[in-house]
Amino acid sequence: MPKVVSVVGYHNSGKTTLIERLIPELQKLGLRVGYIKHDPKGHGITEKEGSDTDRIFKLSERVALLSPSKLTLWEKREDDPLKVVEEYFYDCHVVILEGWKSLKGVKRIVVGSLDVEGLRVEDLQDMKSVLDYILED
Amino acid sequence: MPKVVSVVGYHNSGKTTLIERLIPELQKLGLRVGYIKHDPKGHGITEKEGSDTDRIFKLSERVALLSPSKLTLWEKREDDPLKVVEEYFYDCHVVILEGWKSLKGVKRIVVGSLDVEGLRVEDLQDMKSVLDYILED
Repeated sequence: MPKVVSVVGYHNSGKTTLIERLIPELQKLGLRVGYIKHDPKGHGITEKEGSDTDRIFKLSERVALLSPSKLTLWEKREDDPLKVVEEYFYDCHVVILEGWKSLKGVKRIVVGSLDVEGLRVEDLQDMKSVLDYILED
Repeated sequence: MPKVVSVVGYHNSGKTTLIERLIPELQKLGLRVGYIKHDPKGHGITEKEGSDTDRIFKLSERVALLSPSKLTLWEKREDDPLKVVEEYFYDCHVVILEGWKSLKGVKRIVVGSLDVEGLRVEDLQDMKSVLDYILED
């Protein structure tokens, strides 16, 4: 199973920026990295209302769109990121979750002033301590 | 492995309408049905430019968004629908492909005047012959 780490913090605290810096550093070590973002309010859904895939998704559990070099898959399922890791990211070495600040049993990186336990990142340029934290057992 | 059938025809010939009628008929028989749409020109991609998932997808192979009751997964991969069936739809009884009029080795339902081999559907109300065609060995 991949190492799973969640990156948490308030809106606009720099979570995605941190992750964008982190992924190439992990890749330089030869690691495959996956990413799952939490979208508890559904703001991230961007399917076109009335598109073919949108219409058919209303009828079925799972729908895919196969575009040049890219698959998009939609599936009805509960909000359990660790099950998604198990089913869809099992071939990754590291999976970074963005969000899920209350999720138990995973390492947690805290960006900004959010008051939860985890590794606090003050300097978004310093990836060394973050990498060490993710990769230690 | 699921039974795989492609539904082909010109733009606006009624492919999606046929599929919307077909899916509930298959479900009434207790069958799980998947759907994969071909998007050879990339028109169906609706990710927001600059969104977190869009930014991270540029860096990694596979990205997911977990919204209420819904997973969206993006993956870089080649345009091979049968591999997608194998990896993501193996637990379905029937997978309906929309498009891929030249795909070999699958049953083909032809809507409208497109000149390819397959079961021709003249009457979008008559699901009986379509069901028989899909379910026969």
